[in-house]
Amino acid sequence: MNVIDAIKTRKSARSYLDKPIEDDKLSAVLEAGRHAPSASNRQEWRFVIVRDPEIREKIAEAAGGQTFVGEAPIIIVACAETDSHVMGGGQLCYPIDVAIALDHITLAAVEVGLGTCWIGLFDEKKVKEILGIPEKIRVVVLMPLGYSTDPSSKEKSRLSLGKIVKYDRW
Amino acid sequence: MNVIDAIKTRKSARSYLDKPIEDDKLSAVLEAGRHAPSASNRQEWRFVIVRDPEIREKIAEAAGGQTFVGEAPIIIVACAETDSHVMGGGQLCYPIDVAIALDHITLAAVEVGLGTCWIGLFDEKKVKEILGIPEKIRVVVLMPLGYSTDPSSKEKSRLSLGKIVKYDRW
Repeated sequence: MNVIDAIKTRKSARSYLDKPIEDDKLSAVLEAGRHAPSASNRQEWRFVIVRDPEIREKIAEAAGGQTFVGEAPIIIVACAETDSHVMGGGQLCYPIDVAIALDHITLAAVEVGLGTCWIGLFDEKKVKEILGIPEKIRVVVLMPLGYSTDPSSKEKSRLSLGKIVKYDRW
Repeated sequence: MNVIDAIKTRKSARSYLDKPIEDDKLSAVLEAGRHAPSASNRQEWRFVIVRDPEIREKIAEAAGGQTFVGEAPIIIVACAETDSHVMGGGQLCYPIDVAIALDHITLAAVEVGLGTCWIGLFDEKKVKEILGIPEKIRVVVLMPLGYSTDPSSKEKSRLSLGKIVKYDRW
């Protein structure tokens, strides 16, 4: 599948088949994340791949009770090993770098037939307790990964290019 | 080009041909950004497409004098319209959402034969002055876009999956 088709095909999956993910597909998706660029090539992303059903259920509870998060056969808990580096432009490195790696993962997932969803709502402290994540590590996003059964085929509305693009001046 | 090949092919381009970008290619790349997901579908990304050579030169000066930034026929100045929204997990929405849209752009660029580079080093105040960007808007990343002549064919080293992935526990 070409890149632009994958981008247009990707949708947030909020229900999943109870079917494990083949190892080669999981590898392909993680490799896509691993190849992401990052500020000064720091690669501060870390991924906890949660497959244990009981732990998934606890994580879903820590994600405001969004049960579908725990129904996916895998939850990727996307972490940052450091949260102190700042780019010259003033932005923290880690949210941007983790987002790039996760975006790679979402698009590679489309290519291998898997669904994902960006989950920004969770209790970071609880997720860290459940997984034994050290104090200094940040949990940035949760991402369920699995075969989507989400029946929604409606494309989310997006602003037109005219509303988001300007030329040479603001 | 398939997604995983595009991800593995993408490299930071630090020199560019003096050749304009065809309108259909620019459209394809911007459409890829426009289709990105965002927290609560807020789509707070805004892109200033800088083509004017004098303005590009000024932006390159404001990017610590990285002259190649101004040599590309286009600089995408990636902005966020709001910087106040916070996800339930504690992360600010805008750096993550702008990064997702820009990552879409970098991969679509590979597909249409264009190079990009993530530039996090710049003087935000100066860039805003040059482009007349209002006070409340944030400039997140600069991204030159053009036909790469960067001779570097060396792949950047990346940590192995064993170093960045954990299973079920930290």
